[in-house]
Parts: sequence; structure tokens; C-alpha cells
Amino acid sequence: MLSEFDLIKQYFDRPAGSGPQRAVLGIGDDCALLAATSGMQTAISSDMLVEGRHFFAGEDPRRLGHKSLAVNLSDLAAMGARPVGFTLALALPAAERDWLHGFSSGLFALADAHDCQLIGGDTTKGPLNICITVFGAVAPGRALRRDAAQPGDDIWISGTLGDARLALAGLRGEVALDAAAQAAAATRMHQPTPRVALGVALAEQGLARAAIDISDGLVGDLGHILARSGVGATLDVDALPAGPVLARQEQRLRRAFSAAGGDDYELCFTADAAQRERIVAAGAACGTAVTRIGRIEALAGLRLVDGAGAPLDLALAGFDHFA
Amino acid sequence: MLSEFDLIKQYFDRPAGSGPQRAVLGIGDDCALLAATSGMQTAISSDMLVEGRHFFAGEDPRRLGHKSLAVNLSDLAAMGARPVGFTLALALPAAERDWLHGFSSGLFALADAHDCQLIGGDTTKGPLNICITVFGAVAPGRALRRDAAQPGDDIWISGTLGDARLALAGLRGEVALDAAAQAAAATRMHQPTPRVALGVALAEQGLARAAIDISDGLVGDLGHILARSGVGATLDVDALPAGPVLARQEQRLRRAFSAAGGDDYELCFTADAAQRERIVAAGAACGTAVTRIGRIEALAGLRLVDGAGAPLDLALAGFDHFA
Repeated sequence: MLSEFDLIKQYFDRPAGSGPQRAVLGIGDDCALLAATSGMQTAISSDMLVEGRHFFAGEDPRRLGHKSLAVNLSDLAAMGARPVGFTLALALPAAERDWLHGFSSGLFALADAHDCQLIGGDTTKGPLNICITVFGAVAPGRALRRDAAQPGDDIWISGTLGDARLALAGLRGEVALDAAAQAAAATRMHQPTPRVALGVALAEQGLARAAIDISDGLVGDLGHILARSGVGATLDVDALPAGPVLARQEQRLRRAFSAAGGDDYELCFTADAAQRERIVAAGAACGTAVTRIGRIEALAGLRLVDGAGAPLDLALAGFDHFA
Repeated sequence: MLSEFDLIKQYFDRPAGSGPQRAVLGIGDDCALLAATSGMQTAISSDMLVEGRHFFAGEDPRRLGHKSLAVNLSDLAAMGARPVGFTLALALPAAERDWLHGFSSGLFALADAHDCQLIGGDTTKGPLNICITVFGAVAPGRALRRDAAQPGDDIWISGTLGDARLALAGLRGEVALDAAAQAAAATRMHQPTPRVALGVALAEQGLARAAIDISDGLVGDLGHILARSGVGATLDVDALPAGPVLARQEQRLRRAFSAAGGDDYELCFTADAAQRERIVAAGAACGTAVTRIGRIEALAGLRLVDGAGAPLDLALAGFDHFA
């Protein structure tokens, strides 16, 4: 049986040179120590993933390692902050080597790709629970806040929407998908891609005003921008870029799952109309599609319209963990 | 039923002016934003508390709120870092108002006492799990690291040891305690006092070299200092300051529970012998007793001795969550 200390040493405390080194002092003391990046603010986000809630029991550990960090990096992306480091607190029913190897491999592959160092954490026995707190650097005044949208702003979305929700519907038997379609859609559910490069570009080049990452569904998450900015919006539901698998489904599903699917981890952001060309260029430079999907307005509330501008009532709701 | 957003708003997102304000941007965005304290490093620690492992099912929520933050502040104390802020990730079986009121009251009472702001976090449904990540400020080169002990250093301990372990023994029926003794000892288990002022004084005045907080038992935790510093030590077990309830128990229990009890959250630190008077004065200024309990030596290993200097074999072990 692995001890707690051996577990950390073997799977999470990597020798110098084998990963990004951002901390003055990393794993192994009471605290980690980070030196401030000169003149920068620190963006901080915590996400907790619970078995049976955020992922299925028996989930592949490598995918789970990826996703656990991806949802946190997505929060940094939504602020336009560059990843620096993260802590990992992990409750495990048992210390199983295969699981730990897979989980840490998936975690570090994504961490290394974003130059983000595991600097500390905690391990304990308990029902499977993964809590990551991530740290990023952003210049003062440059962060993409939820309260910064202005009437007249375009609303943009990165990538595509709805395939993660479609995969869930397939697993639940709500929708019949063939095996290839199910597998393709499931990749979006299990392996979300945090849009870090795009978020950083939008912030550092001053292209966007407000931003949020889409975890609970576009309509619900955009609602947070509207509420905190004291504005409203009109959203063209037929302009929403459906994921490649969802795009082949009937219109009712396309509209519902792209507007309120959840687990997309795309960036929704608002920007002055004068920035359109530069935003398209920034997306191209990052290899991330960007699509204009609506407009911020002074009138409160979110108005959904179809491609012809006619009102749509999709009876959608964001995801609430206690609903 | 409380929604996730109402839960955060009602119990955790306090209006400006009702608590410490340390963040540029707090609860309600994708990330919190902290401005760097000029020239300071950020000390970061995460602890995860699991029901049935770190506390009993049905634990009083106010005490639990206190303890959840206390164990994290204790990590800052062990680095000599001043508390700045923390994130809270919380998995709850259900959103119960009484529980949330008690938990948040206990949490914020301690947070306010240490000028430490809740800046963000996450809430979800799941088996009860509390994960706090805490942030502190410490000047470069001043942090009390585990790898800094030197042969010849005195070994010191703050406060008293063993009452938390005694309370656990009483609850388990391993020791017979009367109700008053059980209640008094239990306070140490449920309401640990993080030694923040002492840790900060030791670091800022340059009085101590290495430090660690005692969560898993003195012998085991001191062992981390010895391993990382590449030194050994002799510990005078009869010099260990037993808690007031433990002090009335037989010698065997006094020795075992003060040397390896766990859940004490006292500071063990090493210091040059020339600092003795200033350390006693710093302890007095903080209202925290400090006691010399041994000496760091070049010879590897930890030697336990009695008050007469004769070797003791207590057959102790630190606490390992996966043992």
C-alpha cells in the first residue's frame, strides 16, 4: 500500500527540469512560495470536481486529470490571465497505482502545455474529490471582467458549442447516436480545451471588454455578464456555432444544446464593434475560431432570436448544482 | 431549496465593509484578482477536510468553519506569512440553511480576526468536503522553511501538545475521562488556534530558521524538518508541554500524546541558541508560550530521551492518511 508521502513523491513531486518551474518553493513545505511577476496581478480560481456529479464513476483517470485542470485553466482564460501554477487537493477512496499514474499523466500533459506548475496541495482518503486552485498573471486593468460589457458591444463565442451536452444526452439515452458520433462528441465532454491563448490575446491586446467561460451553458453564463454589467442582450441562436456532431442533429437539439448545453469551456466575450477585424485575426493566430453571436443592449434581459430576427422561446435554464 | 447562486450570495459573499477587503476583485467573476504586496512573495497552502476522516459526521458547523480555516492559517504561520485571503471549495450533501449559517459564522469569525478575505471558490453537491486554499505575504528570504535547520539549533514548540489526541482517545473509549475533562480537551480538537502572530514575529524579526506546524504529531512532523534539512535531533520528551488535561494523565499517555498526538496545530521551530531571550520575548508579546524541547544535531535520526537524558523508545508513528 502506498503511503501518503510516497504517493505525492512518486506521482506529483517531479524532479527539477521535468516540468515548468515557476515557484520559489514548491511541493514539500507548509506552503509553496510564489514570487510576484513584476507589476502583475494574480488571478485565482478554485474548482471542485465530485464523482457522480462532474464525472462518472469509473471515468478514465488520464481524461479526468486533463479535465480537472482544464476547467481551471478555462477560468484563467476567461480573465485573460497567463497560467503560472496550481495546487491540487485530492480525496481518494484508495491509493491505486494505475489510477494515480493515469491521473497524473493527464494532469501534467496539460499543465506542461500551458507552462503551469503544480506547486502544492493535499491528499487524503475519502470519496473521490478533486479540488484545483489555479494562479495566473494579468496586468492591472487588463483582466476581462464580467462587469465590463457595454451597450453596443458585439458578443462573441470561441470554438463550437453543444457537443459535450450531446454526448451526455447520448449516454443517457435521450438521443440515439451511432458509436462514432458518440465517441466524437464524448471527446468534447471528457477533454475540454481551455482557450488560454485566445483569452490572453484578447486581454493583452485590449480587444475584449467582458468575458466568461461557458461551463453551465451559454445562456446562463452570458446572464452573469449581463447581470454584473447592468445590461441586456439579443442573442442570435441560429448563429451559434454547433459542434461538428451536434451540427448533424435536428434544429431543436442544435438550438437547445448550443444555447444551454453546458461543459463547453468556450469563451464568451464582448467587444467594441471597431475590434472585429483584430479579433478575427487574434482567433486565427491562436487557431481558435471566433463567431459573432449577438449584441449587448441597454435594455435589461436576454432576448433569443432566430436567424431571421424573430423571437425564440427555448425554455432553457442554466445548470444549478443545488436545483 | 437554495440555489447555488443564492447560497453563495447569502452566506459567503459579504457586502463591502463587513470583512477585510484585500482583493482587487473578489467573489463573482471567473477568477479573483489579488494585487501583489510590493516586494513580497505569496505563500500558498491547500488543505482538504473530509467528513469521517478529519471530523465526525454531524460535527457542529460553526466549529467546522473555524477548524477548516484554522488548519490553513496554521500553514501560513509555519512559513511566517501574514494572511491575505483564501478560496473555499465546498461539496455539500444538501444546502441546509442552519448548517450554512453556522459554518460561515465560524469561518468568518476566524477570517476577520486574521484580516483574511474570502476571495472566491466553488460550491457543489457531493459528500461533505471542505477545501480551502490560503494566501499569505512574506518577504523574500524570510520564510521559515523546513530545509533550514542547522546543527546546534534549539528546537522549540509553541503552546501545549496532546489534548486534541486525548480528546479523541476519550471519544473512542481508549481513555476514561470525566465530562469536564473530555469537554476541555475536545476544545483543542475542535477549535485549534493557529499561531499566526508568533510565526509572523519569528519570520519578520529573523528569530527562527526552520519551522513546521504540528498536524500529524510532533515526532512525525519534526521528522520532515530533519529529512529536508539533512540533520538529526535529540528531543527531550519530558520537556514537552502537555496540554492542561493531558498533564493530569499518567506518564505513558503524557509522553505518547504530546510526542505524537496529532491535531495540535502548534509551531515547531528551530533557532540559533543566541536567540533564546528574543524568542521568549516574542512569545510573550503574542501571548503564546514557547518551550525549548531539544536540539538539532549533525547525526541523522531522531533520538528521544527522558528528562535525565536516557534513551526512550515510544514506538510512535506519525499519522498517514493511506496507512
